[in-house]
Amino acid sequence: MKKLINETANVVKESLAGVGAAHADLVRIDFDSRLVIRADAPKKGKVGIISGGGSGHEPMHGGFVGMGMLDAACAGDVFTSPTPDQMEAATKAVNGGVGVLHIVKNYTGDILNFEMGAELCQAEGIEVVSVVIDDDVAVQDSLYTAGRRGVGTTVIAEKICGASAERGDDLQTVADWCRKVNANGRSMGMALTSCTVPAAGKPTFELGENEMEIGIGIHGEPGRTRMEMKSAKEIVTLMAEAIISDLPFSSGDQVIALVNGMGGTPLIELYLVYNELNQICEAKGMTIARRLVGNYITSLDMAGCSITLVKADAEMLSLWDAPVNTPGLRWGV
Amino acid sequence: MKKLINETANVVKESLAGVGAAHADLVRIDFDSRLVIRADAPKKGKVGIISGGGSGHEPMHGGFVGMGMLDAACAGDVFTSPTPDQMEAATKAVNGGVGVLHIVKNYTGDILNFEMGAELCQAEGIEVVSVVIDDDVAVQDSLYTAGRRGVGTTVIAEKICGASAERGDDLQTVADWCRKVNANGRSMGMALTSCTVPAAGKPTFELGENEMEIGIGIHGEPGRTRMEMKSAKEIVTLMAEAIISDLPFSSGDQVIALVNGMGGTPLIELYLVYNELNQICEAKGMTIARRLVGNYITSLDMAGCSITLVKADAEMLSLWDAPVNTPGLRWGV
Repeated sequence: MKKLINETANVVKESLAGVGAAHADLVRIDFDSRLVIRADAPKKGKVGIISGGGSGHEPMHGGFVGMGMLDAACAGDVFTSPTPDQMEAATKAVNGGVGVLHIVKNYTGDILNFEMGAELCQAEGIEVVSVVIDDDVAVQDSLYTAGRRGVGTTVIAEKICGASAERGDDLQTVADWCRKVNANGRSMGMALTSCTVPAAGKPTFELGENEMEIGIGIHGEPGRTRMEMKSAKEIVTLMAEAIISDLPFSSGDQVIALVNGMGGTPLIELYLVYNELNQICEAKGMTIARRLVGNYITSLDMAGCSITLVKADAEMLSLWDAPVNTPGLRWGV
Repeated sequence: MKKLINETANVVKESLAGVGAAHADLVRIDFDSRLVIRADAPKKGKVGIISGGGSGHEPMHGGFVGMGMLDAACAGDVFTSPTPDQMEAATKAVNGGVGVLHIVKNYTGDILNFEMGAELCQAEGIEVVSVVIDDDVAVQDSLYTAGRRGVGTTVIAEKICGASAERGDDLQTVADWCRKVNANGRSMGMALTSCTVPAAGKPTFELGENEMEIGIGIHGEPGRTRMEMKSAKEIVTLMAEAIISDLPFSSGDQVIALVNGMGGTPLIELYLVYNELNQICEAKGMTIARRLVGNYITSLDMAGCSITLVKADAEMLSLWDAPVNTPGLRWGV
């Protein structure tokens, strides 16, 4: 294992310290609870939004804390759920008195721990609504998950809900946006290589010289199938067909697209993937109205990509366009 | 070789098509000359700025085309200089009548071809000034370079010069900013793995299981030394000491820092590297006044990072803070 780290036990803490040092204008770090918190939280009268999960998916979630997106993110160990007391601390830190939304990716550990965290907060009088993201069409049930896994749609949901909260919507409205984004979002990933968890010191799985895995999870959970390498056009077609037929998306739809790198894939390839995706959408009469191309929800050093499409109406697009000021997404400011 | 591509001969073209499709509001693509051009170029009365070089370093340069940064970028084949007619076409496309700056990284092919491109333009009455970036402290002379290589300072120079041109500075002033950034910028890179050029189909070089190369070039050119893996703290110390002692930077300096991923290194590691760099700078009394942490000048899928520091005065910082709207850097808009 070759990584730019010190002690494996300190990777998350030291990386958070880097985030805090680099973005002190946007966020502060609570090292005891391993939280990235919006610098000006809590915002009185604004719905708070937290998310979190295992580390190793950066910039998600800590990189999306700031004006117009998350109020706090809980960082677990690499690929390990944060603990309920982290969710409790985050919720309290961002509670502006009008409730807090928990955006939870569908992994069993995250679900359980966010539930316990929410209960602790509710016992203290903080209103909490949790919305689960389960957008990965690859497989039903998985290594760490009952039902579908939560992946790229989470990023879109965090942006849309952040804008909703920022303009003053109440908790139910912000939560409704989260449900709506999830209901209209579908994703699928693929891997060219494994990732290597620092504490494990060796690849999570093995792929042959000329092999790839379609439908991979963001922790290396098995996907739909392993197959011989194909062209980008064939790979994107496989993924896009699975995504588009699932909602189903249809002609005339406007979508927000995310072409996401898994951490080890360079941008020259991601834009090539976007080009294929765009052609497929055009051929189906779908319009990619907004998009992100880059590393947004990664799997450490895995090479590969994922595609997310979210069907969007005009109001969702206007929430997308609203100003955001986070380490990982920034516009309008 | 496993990459998300189709035919190797089409990688650059298809990736440019993705950039054009994703960012049609910001840029247009000239496929004949393989240029990324600012959507509203030429801007009458504004100094034009172009750069370019081999592909494989994305988002540089095409990702930095847009308001407040470059007016056009010439994309060569992977790790291969663009041709003089590309520079000529780019210069003409962005010529607003008050001259064009060429920002050239110091590689022999780039130098020669930019020179010829500039001569072609000057023969047609377009005023061109070229400034060469040569900020890599790792080695004197290299595989493709006489003198020092041009690396991360290029990104900073493109931003500063873009802001200078945008506010209406004349060609000599914009060029002076480029010279000033280069004179005050120093960089060094390191690799954990090789990269693989698509057309070659195999790694450019080999590194052992527990080996790294300090001072690597962005095309895999040999650096200062190969050594056994060390901790991030030791690696960053090696690189930072080489950089800081070279200018030399000194106590009280404000700097713009770039912690750059080579393409295959995830953000969790880059922020950990930033944390180490920040501590070293603090210990020396230097202040990182602005920074970028992420993939900005990559080497295809190489794992590793580079560090750039640019000593900055108040005016340079205000040019840094000026609005920018490109696929790769965006703020203030």
